[in-house]
Amino acid sequence: MNIIERLRQQVINRGPVCVGLDPREGLFPEYIQNSDWTITKKLFEFNKAIIDATYEEVACYKPQIACYEAFGLEGLMAYKETLKYIKKKGQISIGDIKRGDISSTGDMYAKAHFEGDFEVDIITVNPYMGEDAISPYYKYMKDGNKGLFALVRTSNQSSVDFQELKVEGEEVFIKGAKLVEKWGEQFREKEEFSCIGGVVGLTFPEEFEKIKKAAPHTFFLIPGYGAQGGTGKDAARVLGKEMCGVINSSRGIIGAHKGKNETETFAEEALKEVKRMKEDILKWL
Amino acid sequence: MNIIERLRQQVINRGPVCVGLDPREGLFPEYIQNSDWTITKKLFEFNKAIIDATYEEVACYKPQIACYEAFGLEGLMAYKETLKYIKKKGQISIGDIKRGDISSTGDMYAKAHFEGDFEVDIITVNPYMGEDAISPYYKYMKDGNKGLFALVRTSNQSSVDFQELKVEGEEVFIKGAKLVEKWGEQFREKEEFSCIGGVVGLTFPEEFEKIKKAAPHTFFLIPGYGAQGGTGKDAARVLGKEMCGVINSSRGIIGAHKGKNETETFAEEALKEVKRMKEDILKWL
Repeated sequence: MNIIERLRQQVINRGPVCVGLDPREGLFPEYIQNSDWTITKKLFEFNKAIIDATYEEVACYKPQIACYEAFGLEGLMAYKETLKYIKKKGQISIGDIKRGDISSTGDMYAKAHFEGDFEVDIITVNPYMGEDAISPYYKYMKDGNKGLFALVRTSNQSSVDFQELKVEGEEVFIKGAKLVEKWGEQFREKEEFSCIGGVVGLTFPEEFEKIKKAAPHTFFLIPGYGAQGGTGKDAARVLGKEMCGVINSSRGIIGAHKGKNETETFAEEALKEVKRMKEDILKWL
Repeated sequence: MNIIERLRQQVINRGPVCVGLDPREGLFPEYIQNSDWTITKKLFEFNKAIIDATYEEVACYKPQIACYEAFGLEGLMAYKETLKYIKKKGQISIGDIKRGDISSTGDMYAKAHFEGDFEVDIITVNPYMGEDAISPYYKYMKDGNKGLFALVRTSNQSSVDFQELKVEGEEVFIKGAKLVEKWGEQFREKEEFSCIGGVVGLTFPEEFEKIKKAAPHTFFLIPGYGAQGGTGKDAARVLGKEMCGVINSSRGIIGAHKGKNETETFAEEALKEVKRMKEDILKWL
Protein backbone atom coordinates (compact mmCIF):
# COMPACT_ATOMS: atom_id res chain seq x y z
CA MET A 1 0.00 0.00 0.00
CA ASN A 2 1.54 3.33 -0.98
CA ILE A 3 2.01 6.13 1.55
CA ILE A 4 -1.01 8.08 0.30
CA GLU A 5 -3.23 5.00 0.66
CA ARG A 6 -1.76 4.48 4.13
CA LEU A 7 -2.72 8.04 4.92
CA ARG A 8 -6.23 7.37 3.62
CA GLN A 9 -6.47 4.34 5.90
CA GLN A 10 -5.54 6.61 8.80
CA VAL A 11 -8.29 9.00 7.72
CA ILE A 12 -10.79 6.13 7.68
CA ASN A 13 -9.62 4.65 10.99
CA ARG A 14 -8.82 7.75 13.03
CA GLY A 15 -10.73 10.50 11.28
CA PRO A 16 -9.72 13.12 8.70
CA VAL A 17 -7.74 15.52 10.90
CA CYS A 18 -4.24 16.68 10.01
CA VAL A 19 -2.63 18.74 12.77
CA GLY A 20 -0.62 21.68 11.44
CA LEU A 21 2.39 22.01 13.72
CA ASP A 22 3.05 25.69 13.08
CA PRO A 23 4.24 26.90 16.47
CA ARG A 24 4.69 30.63 16.90
CA GLU A 25 5.80 32.45 19.99
CA GLY A 26 2.33 33.88 20.61
CA LEU A 27 0.91 30.35 20.76
CA PHE A 28 3.14 28.98 23.49
CA PRO A 29 1.39 28.51 26.85
CA GLU A 30 2.80 30.79 29.51
CA TYR A 31 4.83 28.10 31.27
CA ILE A 32 6.80 27.64 28.03
CA GLN A 33 6.84 31.30 27.00
CA ASN A 34 8.18 32.38 30.41
CA SER A 35 10.72 29.57 30.74
CA ASP A 36 14.44 30.10 30.19
CA TRP A 37 14.55 27.24 27.67
CA THR A 38 16.30 27.63 24.34
CA ILE A 39 14.00 28.25 21.37
CA THR A 40 14.80 24.69 20.23
CA LYS A 41 13.46 23.28 23.48
CA LYS A 42 10.44 25.60 23.51
CA LEU A 43 9.41 24.58 20.00
CA PHE A 44 10.01 20.89 20.57
CA GLU A 45 8.38 20.61 24.00
CA PHE A 46 5.33 22.45 22.67
CA ASN A 47 5.03 20.04 19.73
CA LYS A 48 5.71 16.99 21.88
CA ALA A 49 2.89 17.87 24.26
CA ILE A 50 0.48 18.30 21.33
CA ILE A 51 1.59 15.03 19.72
CA ASP A 52 1.38 13.08 22.99
CA ALA A 53 -2.17 14.31 23.54
CA THR A 54 -3.49 13.75 20.01
CA TYR A 55 -1.60 11.06 18.12
CA GLU A 56 -4.21 8.35 18.50
CA GLU A 57 -6.97 10.61 17.22
CA VAL A 58 -5.47 12.16 14.10
CA ALA A 59 -4.46 11.02 10.63
CA CYS A 60 -1.12 12.83 10.40
CA TYR A 61 0.97 15.85 11.37
CA LYS A 62 2.08 18.66 9.10
CA PRO A 63 4.89 20.83 10.45
CA GLN A 64 5.23 24.10 8.51
CA ILE A 65 8.99 24.40 8.03
CA ALA A 66 8.86 28.23 7.83
CA CYS A 67 7.97 28.37 11.53
CA TYR A 68 11.26 26.62 12.31
CA GLU A 69 13.40 28.23 9.61
CA ALA A 70 12.44 31.59 11.13
CA PHE A 71 14.64 30.70 14.12
CA GLY A 72 17.59 29.65 11.99
CA LEU A 73 19.65 26.61 12.95
CA GLU A 74 18.10 26.40 16.42
CA GLY A 75 14.63 26.35 14.91
CA LEU A 76 15.56 23.67 12.41
CA MET A 77 16.96 21.54 15.22
CA ALA A 78 13.45 21.55 16.68
CA TYR A 79 12.03 20.68 13.25
CA LYS A 80 14.33 17.65 13.11
CA GLU A 81 13.44 16.55 16.64
CA THR A 82 9.74 16.97 15.93
CA LEU A 83 9.94 14.76 12.83
CA LYS A 84 11.77 12.08 14.80
CA TYR A 85 9.11 12.20 17.47
CA ILE A 86 6.23 11.91 15.00
CA LYS A 87 7.91 8.80 13.56
CA LYS A 88 8.51 7.36 17.03
CA LYS A 89 4.77 7.66 17.67
CA GLY A 90 4.06 5.66 14.51
CA GLN A 91 2.51 8.65 12.81
CA ILE A 92 2.73 10.05 9.28
CA SER A 93 4.57 13.33 8.72
CA ILE A 94 3.90 15.87 5.98
CA GLY A 95 6.71 18.40 5.59
CA ASP A 96 5.00 21.60 4.47
CA ILE A 97 7.99 22.94 2.56
CA LYS A 98 6.45 24.07 -0.76
CA ARG A 99 9.82 23.84 -2.48
CA GLY A 100 9.93 23.86 -6.26
CA ASP A 101 12.91 24.30 -8.57
CA ILE A 102 14.61 22.93 -11.69
CA SER A 103 15.65 19.27 -11.69
CA SER A 104 19.26 19.57 -10.52
CA THR A 105 18.12 21.71 -7.57
CA GLY A 106 15.08 19.52 -7.00
CA ASP A 107 17.45 16.58 -6.58
CA MET A 108 19.03 18.40 -3.65
CA TYR A 109 15.65 19.22 -2.09
CA ALA A 110 14.67 15.55 -2.48
CA LYS A 111 17.80 14.50 -0.63
CA ALA A 112 17.08 17.15 2.01
CA HIS A 113 13.51 16.07 2.76
CA PHE A 114 13.38 12.36 1.94
CA GLU A 115 16.70 11.50 3.66
CA GLY A 116 18.71 12.67 6.65
CA ASP A 117 17.85 15.28 9.28
CA PHE A 118 14.62 16.51 7.69
CA GLU A 119 13.20 13.21 6.41
CA VAL A 120 9.42 13.11 6.19
CA ASP A 121 6.92 10.75 4.58
CA ILE A 122 5.28 13.31 2.33
CA ILE A 123 6.22 16.84 1.23
CA THR A 124 4.32 19.73 -0.33
CA VAL A 125 5.69 21.08 -3.62
CA ASN A 126 5.12 24.25 -5.68
CA PRO A 127 4.61 23.22 -9.33
CA TYR A 128 4.99 26.65 -11.00
CA MET A 129 8.13 25.45 -12.82
CA GLY A 130 6.26 22.43 -14.17
CA GLU A 131 7.03 18.72 -13.96
CA ASP A 132 10.77 19.45 -13.55
CA ALA A 133 9.87 20.65 -10.05
CA ILE A 134 8.14 17.31 -9.32
CA SER A 135 10.16 14.63 -11.11
CA PRO A 136 13.26 14.81 -8.86
CA TYR A 137 11.12 13.15 -6.17
CA TYR A 138 10.02 10.23 -8.36
CA LYS A 139 12.96 8.01 -7.52
CA TYR A 140 11.95 8.12 -3.85
CA MET A 141 8.35 7.36 -4.71
CA LYS A 142 8.84 4.28 -6.85
CA ASP A 143 8.51 1.85 -3.96
CA GLY A 144 5.53 3.77 -2.58
CA ASN A 145 7.19 4.85 0.66
CA LYS A 146 7.26 8.57 -0.11
CA GLY A 147 4.69 10.91 -1.55
CA LEU A 148 4.02 14.54 -2.33
CA PHE A 149 1.22 17.06 -2.50
CA ALA A 150 1.51 19.61 -5.31
CA LEU A 151 -0.20 22.99 -4.91
CA VAL A 152 -3.32 23.06 -7.05
CA ARG A 153 -5.66 25.65 -5.59
CA THR A 154 -4.73 27.65 -2.53
CA SER A 155 -7.22 29.35 -0.26
CA ASN A 156 -5.55 32.75 0.05
CA GLN A 157 -7.07 35.85 -1.48
CA SER A 158 -4.39 36.62 -4.03
CA SER A 159 -4.50 33.12 -5.49
CA VAL A 160 -6.51 35.04 -8.10
CA ASP A 161 -3.24 36.47 -9.48
CA PHE A 162 -2.18 33.23 -11.20
CA GLN A 163 -4.42 30.31 -10.31
CA GLU A 164 -7.70 31.85 -11.49
CA LEU A 165 -6.43 33.01 -14.86
CA LYS A 166 -8.51 31.40 -17.60
CA VAL A 167 -6.84 29.33 -20.29
CA GLU A 168 -9.05 28.11 -23.11
CA GLY A 169 -12.07 28.60 -20.88
CA GLU A 170 -10.49 26.71 -17.99
CA GLU A 171 -8.84 28.09 -14.87
CA VAL A 172 -5.12 27.50 -14.39
CA PHE A 173 -5.90 25.47 -11.26
CA ILE A 174 -7.95 23.00 -13.33
CA LYS A 175 -4.97 22.65 -15.68
CA GLY A 176 -2.91 22.04 -12.56
CA ALA A 177 -5.29 19.38 -11.26
CA LYS A 178 -5.10 17.54 -14.60
CA LEU A 179 -1.29 17.67 -14.57
CA VAL A 180 -1.16 16.29 -11.03
CA GLU A 181 -3.47 13.44 -12.04
CA LYS A 182 -1.30 12.70 -15.09
CA TRP A 183 2.00 12.84 -13.18
CA GLY A 184 0.54 10.48 -10.58
CA GLU A 185 -0.56 7.73 -12.98
CA GLN A 186 2.81 5.99 -12.84
CA PHE A 187 2.56 5.75 -9.04
CA ARG A 188 -0.67 3.84 -8.90
CA GLU A 189 -1.23 0.21 -9.71
CA LYS A 190 -4.07 -1.48 -7.91
CA GLU A 191 -4.42 1.43 -5.54
CA GLU A 192 -7.19 3.91 -5.90
CA PHE A 193 -4.98 6.94 -5.21
CA SER A 194 -1.49 7.72 -6.49
CA CYS A 195 1.53 8.92 -4.50
CA ILE A 196 1.05 12.42 -5.93
CA GLY A 197 -1.68 14.33 -4.18
CA GLY A 198 -2.89 17.91 -4.51
CA VAL A 199 -3.29 20.82 -2.12
CA VAL A 200 -6.71 22.42 -2.49
CA GLY A 201 -8.10 24.96 -0.02
CA LEU A 202 -11.49 24.36 1.57
CA THR A 203 -12.60 27.95 1.05
CA PHE A 204 -13.92 27.28 -2.45
CA PRO A 205 -15.99 24.10 -1.91
CA GLU A 206 -18.11 24.67 -5.02
CA GLU A 207 -14.98 24.36 -7.16
CA PHE A 208 -13.91 21.14 -5.54
CA GLU A 209 -16.32 19.08 -7.63
CA LYS A 210 -14.63 20.30 -10.80
CA ILE A 211 -11.20 19.57 -9.36
CA LYS A 212 -12.20 16.06 -8.26
CA LYS A 213 -13.51 15.34 -11.74
CA ALA A 214 -10.24 16.55 -13.25
CA ALA A 215 -8.20 14.44 -10.83
CA PRO A 216 -10.20 11.36 -9.76
CA HIS A 217 -7.20 9.36 -8.45
CA THR A 218 -5.67 12.27 -6.59
CA PHE A 219 -5.84 12.50 -2.81
CA PHE A 220 -6.07 15.98 -1.31
CA LEU A 221 -4.44 17.88 1.50
CA ILE A 222 -7.06 20.44 2.41
CA PRO A 223 -6.24 23.54 4.45
CA GLY A 224 -8.78 26.24 5.25
CA TYR A 225 -10.96 24.64 7.94
CA GLY A 226 -12.05 26.94 10.78
CA ALA A 227 -9.95 30.09 10.94
CA GLN A 228 -9.99 30.40 7.15
CA GLY A 229 -13.74 29.93 6.86
CA GLY A 230 -14.26 26.29 5.83
CA THR A 231 -17.01 24.42 7.74
CA GLY A 232 -17.46 20.79 8.74
CA LYS A 233 -20.23 20.48 6.18
CA ASP A 234 -17.92 21.79 3.43
CA ALA A 235 -15.26 19.31 4.51
CA ALA A 236 -17.66 16.36 4.50
CA ARG A 237 -18.95 17.28 1.07
CA VAL A 238 -15.42 17.39 -0.31
CA LEU A 239 -14.24 14.16 1.33
CA GLY A 240 -17.24 12.16 0.17
CA LYS A 241 -17.74 8.49 0.88
CA GLU A 242 -14.38 7.66 -0.68
CA MET A 243 -12.58 9.82 1.90
CA CYS A 244 -10.39 11.43 -0.74
CA GLY A 245 -8.50 13.82 1.49
CA VAL A 246 -7.33 14.97 4.87
CA ILE A 247 -8.39 18.24 6.51
CA ASN A 248 -5.69 20.40 8.07
CA SER A 249 -6.17 22.68 11.04
CA SER A 250 -3.24 24.49 12.60
CA ARG A 251 -4.02 27.38 14.92
CA GLY A 252 -7.48 26.01 15.70
CA ILE A 253 -5.87 22.98 17.34
CA ILE A 254 -2.47 24.09 18.59
CA GLY A 255 -3.84 27.42 19.85
CA ALA A 256 -6.98 25.95 21.46
CA HIS A 257 -5.54 26.41 24.95
CA LYS A 258 -4.98 30.18 24.63
CA GLY A 259 -6.85 32.00 27.39
CA LYS A 260 -8.03 28.67 28.83
CA ASN A 261 -5.07 26.68 30.03
CA GLU A 262 -1.50 28.00 30.06
CA THR A 263 -0.04 25.14 32.09
CA GLU A 264 1.62 21.76 31.45
CA THR A 265 -1.78 20.26 30.66
CA PHE A 266 -2.48 22.76 27.86
CA ALA A 267 -2.53 20.11 25.15
CA GLU A 268 -5.74 18.62 26.54
CA GLU A 269 -7.42 21.55 24.79
CA ALA A 270 -5.82 20.48 21.51
CA LEU A 271 -7.26 16.99 21.94
CA LYS A 272 -10.71 18.44 22.71
CA GLU A 273 -10.53 20.53 19.55
CA VAL A 274 -9.46 17.52 17.46
CA LYS A 275 -12.47 15.56 18.75
CA ARG A 276 -14.82 18.49 18.20
CA MET A 277 -13.52 18.97 14.67
CA LYS A 278 -13.93 15.28 13.80
CA GLU A 279 -17.48 15.33 15.12
CA ASP A 280 -18.17 18.54 13.17
CA ILE A 281 -17.08 16.85 9.93
CA LEU A 282 -18.17 13.25 10.40
CA LYS A 283 -21.75 14.10 11.38
CA TRP A 284 -22.33 15.16 7.76
CA LEU A 285 -21.02 11.94 6.27
CA MET B 1 20.00 54.00 -3.28
CA ASN B 2 17.98 50.82 -2.90
CA ILE B 3 19.60 47.39 -2.85
CA ILE B 4 18.65 46.62 -6.45
CA GLU B 5 20.20 49.91 -7.63
CA ARG B 6 23.27 49.08 -5.56
CA LEU B 7 23.41 45.74 -7.35
CA ARG B 8 23.12 47.54 -10.69
CA GLN B 9 26.03 49.78 -9.72
CA GLN B 10 28.05 46.66 -9.04
CA VAL B 11 27.07 45.37 -12.47
CA ILE B 12 28.26 48.64 -14.05
CA ASN B 13 31.48 48.81 -12.02
CA ARG B 14 32.50 45.16 -11.82
CA GLY B 15 30.62 43.52 -14.67
CA PRO B 16 27.36 41.57 -14.86
CA VAL B 17 28.45 38.25 -13.31
CA CYS B 18 26.56 36.62 -10.45
CA VAL B 19 28.34 33.55 -9.08
CA GLY B 20 25.96 30.73 -8.22
CA LEU B 21 27.38 29.09 -5.10
CA ASP B 22 25.77 25.68 -5.62
CA PRO B 23 28.44 23.32 -4.30
CA ARG B 24 27.89 19.62 -4.86
CA GLU B 25 30.16 16.81 -3.82
CA GLY B 26 31.17 16.10 -7.43
CA LEU B 27 32.45 19.67 -7.78
CA PHE B 28 34.87 19.67 -4.86
CA PRO B 29 38.53 19.56 -5.88
CA GLU B 30 40.23 16.36 -4.78
CA TYR B 31 42.06 17.90 -1.82
CA ILE B 32 38.68 18.79 -0.33
CA GLN B 33 36.84 15.66 -1.49
CA ASN B 34 39.51 13.38 0.01
CA SER B 35 39.92 15.32 3.25
CA ASP B 36 38.46 14.13 6.54
CA TRP B 37 36.71 17.48 7.08
CA THR B 38 33.06 17.63 8.09
CA ILE B 39 30.63 18.43 5.29
CA THR B 40 30.19 21.88 6.89
CA LYS B 41 33.90 22.58 6.53
CA LYS B 42 34.05 21.12 3.01
CA LEU B 43 31.18 23.28 1.78
CA PHE B 44 32.45 26.44 3.47
CA GLU B 45 36.12 26.12 2.53
CA PHE B 46 35.10 25.48 -1.09
CA ASN B 47 32.96 28.61 -1.13
CA LYS B 48 35.53 30.70 0.71
CA ALA B 49 38.22 29.87 -1.86
CA ILE B 50 35.87 30.85 -4.71
CA ILE B 51 34.86 34.08 -2.98
CA ASP B 52 38.45 35.03 -2.13
CA ALA B 53 39.46 34.56 -5.76
CA THR B 54 36.55 36.37 -7.39
CA TYR B 55 34.96 38.99 -5.13
CA GLU B 56 36.53 42.01 -6.79
CA GLU B 57 35.41 40.90 -10.24
CA VAL B 58 31.76 39.97 -9.73
CA ALA B 59 28.51 41.77 -8.98
CA CYS B 60 27.13 39.38 -6.35
CA TYR B 61 26.90 35.81 -5.07
CA LYS B 62 23.85 33.57 -5.15
CA PRO B 63 24.00 30.51 -2.90
CA GLN B 64 21.34 27.95 -3.80
CA ILE B 65 19.98 26.91 -0.39
CA ALA B 66 18.93 23.44 -1.63
CA CYS B 67 22.62 22.48 -1.95
CA TYR B 68 23.02 23.12 1.78
CA GLU B 69 19.61 21.89 2.95
CA ALA B 70 20.50 18.56 1.32
CA PHE B 71 23.04 18.03 4.12
CA GLY B 72 20.62 18.93 6.88
CA LEU B 73 21.78 21.01 9.84
CA GLU B 74 25.45 20.60 8.94
CA GLY B 75 24.81 21.86 5.44
CA LEU B 76 22.85 24.84 6.70
CA MET B 77 25.69 25.72 9.07
CA ALA B 78 27.85 26.11 5.95
CA TYR B 79 25.12 28.22 4.33
CA LYS B 80 25.17 30.54 7.34
CA GLU B 81 28.97 30.78 7.35
CA THR B 82 29.02 31.45 3.61
CA LEU B 83 26.55 34.32 3.94
CA LYS B 84 28.62 35.86 6.74
CA TYR B 85 31.72 35.62 4.60
CA ILE B 86 30.06 37.24 1.57
CA LYS B 87 29.07 40.15 3.81
CA LYS B 88 32.54 40.40 5.32
CA LYS B 89 33.92 40.80 1.80
CA GLY B 90 31.52 43.69 1.21
CA GLN B 91 29.59 41.76 -1.38
CA ILE B 92 25.86 41.40 -2.09
CA SER B 93 24.16 38.06 -1.36
CA ILE B 94 21.13 36.64 -3.13
CA GLY B 95 19.56 33.73 -1.24
CA ASP B 96 18.14 31.46 -3.93
CA ILE B 97 15.35 30.07 -1.78
CA LYS B 98 12.29 30.32 -4.06
CA ARG B 99 9.97 30.22 -1.06
CA GLY B 100 6.37 31.25 -1.52
CA ASP B 101 3.43 30.79 0.83
CA ILE B 102 0.42 32.55 2.34
CA SER B 103 1.03 35.70 4.36
CA SER B 104 1.27 34.27 7.87
CA THR B 105 3.82 31.71 6.65
CA GLY B 106 5.54 34.28 4.46
CA ASP B 107 6.10 36.36 7.60
CA MET B 108 8.09 33.48 9.02
CA TYR B 109 10.13 33.06 5.84
CA ALA B 110 10.82 36.81 5.87
CA LYS B 111 12.13 36.53 9.43
CA ALA B 112 14.18 33.50 8.39
CA HIS B 113 15.92 35.11 5.43
CA PHE B 114 16.03 38.84 6.23
CA GLU B 115 17.11 38.38 9.87
CA GLY B 116 19.23 36.00 11.90
CA ASP B 117 21.31 33.03 10.75
CA PHE B 118 20.26 33.07 7.11
CA GLU B 119 20.12 36.83 6.50
CA VAL B 120 20.76 37.85 2.90
CA ASP B 121 20.33 41.10 0.96
CA ILE B 122 17.96 39.72 -1.65
CA ILE B 123 15.90 36.52 -1.93
CA THR B 124 14.17 34.71 -4.78
CA VAL B 125 10.45 34.06 -4.37
CA ASN B 126 7.90 31.83 -6.12
CA PRO B 127 4.79 33.93 -6.86
CA TYR B 128 2.32 31.11 -7.71
CA MET B 129 0.19 32.00 -4.68
CA GLY B 130 0.00 35.64 -5.82
CA GLU B 131 0.89 38.85 -4.01
CA ASP B 132 0.29 37.19 -0.61
CA ALA B 133 3.53 35.31 -1.25
CA ILE B 134 5.38 38.60 -1.86
CA SER B 135 3.86 41.14 0.54
CA PRO B 136 5.28 39.62 3.78
CA TYR B 137 8.67 40.91 2.63
CA TYR B 138 7.50 44.50 2.06
CA LYS B 139 8.17 45.65 5.61
CA TYR B 140 11.84 44.75 5.18
CA MET B 141 12.00 46.52 1.84
CA LYS B 142 10.58 49.89 2.86
CA ASP B 143 13.94 51.42 3.66
CA GLY B 144 15.46 49.93 0.52
CA ASN B 145 17.93 47.62 2.27
CA LYS B 146 16.31 44.37 1.18
CA GLY B 147 14.96 43.19 -2.14
CA LEU B 148 13.55 40.17 -3.90
CA PHE B 149 13.43 38.53 -7.30
CA ALA B 150 10.10 36.87 -8.17
CA LEU B 151 10.09 34.01 -10.68
CA VAL B 152 8.73 35.27 -13.99
CA ARG B 153 10.03 33.00 -16.71
CA THR B 154 12.26 30.05 -15.92
CA SER B 155 14.56 28.40 -18.40
CA ASN B 156 13.71 24.76 -17.73
CA GLN B 157 11.89 22.66 -20.29
CA SER B 158 8.69 22.03 -18.34
CA SER B 159 8.15 25.74 -17.70
CA VAL B 160 5.67 25.17 -20.53
CA ASP B 161 3.30 23.46 -18.03
CA PHE B 162 2.19 26.71 -16.40
CA GLN B 163 4.22 29.69 -17.56
CA GLU B 164 3.47 29.35 -21.28
CA LEU B 165 -0.27 28.91 -20.91
CA LYS B 166 -2.04 31.66 -22.85
CA VAL B 167 -4.49 33.94 -21.08
CA GLU B 168 -6.38 36.38 -23.27
CA GLY B 169 -3.70 36.02 -25.93
CA GLU B 170 -0.89 36.61 -23.47
CA GLU B 171 1.39 34.05 -21.81
CA VAL B 172 1.15 33.60 -18.05
CA PHE B 173 4.76 34.78 -17.74
CA ILE B 174 3.83 38.14 -19.31
CA LYS B 175 1.02 38.46 -16.75
CA GLY B 176 3.67 37.66 -14.14
CA ALA B 177 6.03 40.34 -15.46
CA LYS B 178 3.26 42.93 -15.27
CA LEU B 179 2.41 41.92 -11.70
CA VAL B 180 6.04 42.19 -10.65
CA GLU B 181 6.25 45.67 -12.20
CA LYS B 182 3.06 46.70 -10.39
CA TRP B 183 4.11 45.27 -7.02
CA GLY B 184 7.44 47.09 -7.34
CA GLU B 185 6.05 50.56 -7.98
CA GLN B 186 5.82 51.37 -4.27
CA PHE B 187 9.54 50.59 -3.86
CA ARG B 188 10.82 53.08 -6.37
CA GLU B 189 11.03 56.83 -5.99
CA LYS B 190 13.76 58.56 -7.92
CA GLU B 191 15.42 55.24 -8.71
CA GLU B 192 15.11 53.65 -12.10
CA PHE B 193 14.56 50.15 -10.74
CA SER B 194 12.41 48.97 -7.85
CA CYS B 195 13.34 46.60 -5.02
CA ILE B 196 11.28 43.86 -6.67
CA GLY B 197 13.09 42.21 -9.54
CA GLY B 198 12.23 39.26 -11.73
CA VAL B 199 13.91 35.96 -12.56
CA VAL B 200 13.95 35.38 -16.32
CA GLY B 201 16.00 32.64 -17.98
CA LEU B 202 18.40 33.53 -20.78
CA THR B 203 17.34 30.59 -22.92
CA PHE B 204 14.46 32.49 -24.50
CA PRO B 205 16.16 35.78 -25.49
CA GLU B 206 13.56 36.61 -28.14
CA GLU B 207 10.90 36.78 -25.41
CA PHE B 208 12.95 39.08 -23.25
CA GLU B 209 11.96 42.15 -25.27
CA LYS B 210 8.31 41.49 -24.48
CA ILE B 211 9.09 40.97 -20.81
CA LYS B 212 11.16 44.17 -20.61
CA LYS B 213 8.33 46.12 -22.18
CA ALA B 214 5.88 44.67 -19.65
CA ALA B 215 8.23 45.48 -16.76
CA PRO B 216 10.39 48.50 -17.64
CA HIS B 217 11.43 49.31 -14.03
CA THR B 218 12.18 45.73 -13.11
CA PHE B 219 15.75 44.51 -12.76
CA PHE B 220 16.41 40.89 -13.73
CA LEU B 221 18.26 37.96 -12.28
CA ILE B 222 19.13 35.91 -15.36
CA PRO B 223 20.16 32.26 -15.13
CA GLY B 224 20.84 30.12 -18.17
CA TYR B 225 24.25 31.35 -19.39
CA GLY B 226 26.65 28.66 -20.61
CA ALA B 227 25.61 25.19 -19.48
CA GLN B 228 21.95 25.99 -20.18
CA GLY B 229 22.60 27.38 -23.66
CA GLY B 230 22.58 31.18 -23.30
CA THR B 231 25.44 33.01 -25.07
CA GLY B 232 27.34 36.21 -24.34
CA LYS B 233 25.58 37.88 -27.25
CA ASP B 234 22.17 36.87 -25.84
CA ALA B 235 23.18 38.26 -22.46
CA ALA B 236 24.40 41.57 -23.90
CA ARG B 237 21.21 41.98 -25.91
CA VAL B 238 19.10 41.45 -22.82
CA LEU B 239 21.13 43.72 -20.53
CA GLY B 240 21.16 46.61 -23.00
CA LYS B 241 22.79 49.95 -22.33
CA GLU B 242 20.78 50.39 -19.14
CA MET B 243 22.31 47.22 -17.66
CA CYS B 244 18.97 45.97 -16.46
CA GLY B 245 20.10 42.68 -14.99
CA VAL B 246 22.77 40.36 -13.68
CA ILE B 247 23.80 37.11 -15.37
CA ASN B 248 24.18 34.03 -13.18
CA SER B 249 26.57 31.19 -13.82
CA SER B 250 26.98 28.37 -11.32
CA ARG B 251 28.70 25.21 -12.51
CA GLY B 252 30.53 27.07 -15.31
CA ILE B 253 32.41 29.06 -12.67
CA ILE B 254 32.58 26.89 -9.56
CA GLY B 255 33.33 23.76 -11.60
CA ALA B 256 35.88 25.41 -13.92
CA HIS B 257 38.77 23.66 -12.15
CA LYS B 258 37.47 20.11 -12.73
CA GLY B 259 40.07 18.07 -14.60
CA LYS B 260 42.46 21.05 -14.55
CA ASN B 261 43.40 21.88 -11.00
CA GLU B 262 42.34 19.82 -8.01
CA THR B 263 44.61 21.57 -5.48
CA GLU B 264 44.42 24.50 -3.05
CA THR B 265 44.77 26.92 -5.99
CA PHE B 266 41.70 25.54 -7.78
CA ALA B 267 39.74 28.79 -7.50
CA GLU B 268 42.12 30.54 -9.91
CA GLU B 269 40.15 28.69 -12.59
CA ALA B 270 36.93 30.22 -11.27
CA LEU B 271 38.47 33.69 -11.58
CA LYS B 272 39.62 32.94 -15.15
CA GLU B 273 36.12 31.82 -16.06
CA VAL B 274 34.58 34.96 -14.50
CA LYS B 275 36.91 37.13 -16.61
CA ARG B 276 36.23 35.10 -19.74
CA MET B 277 32.49 35.33 -19.17
CA LYS B 278 32.62 39.12 -18.65
CA GLU B 279 34.64 39.54 -21.83
CA ASP B 280 32.21 37.24 -23.68
CA ILE B 281 29.28 39.46 -22.67
CA LEU B 282 30.81 42.94 -22.62
CA LYS B 283 32.32 42.72 -26.09
CA TRP B 284 28.79 42.88 -27.50
CA LEU B 285 27.82 45.99 -25.58
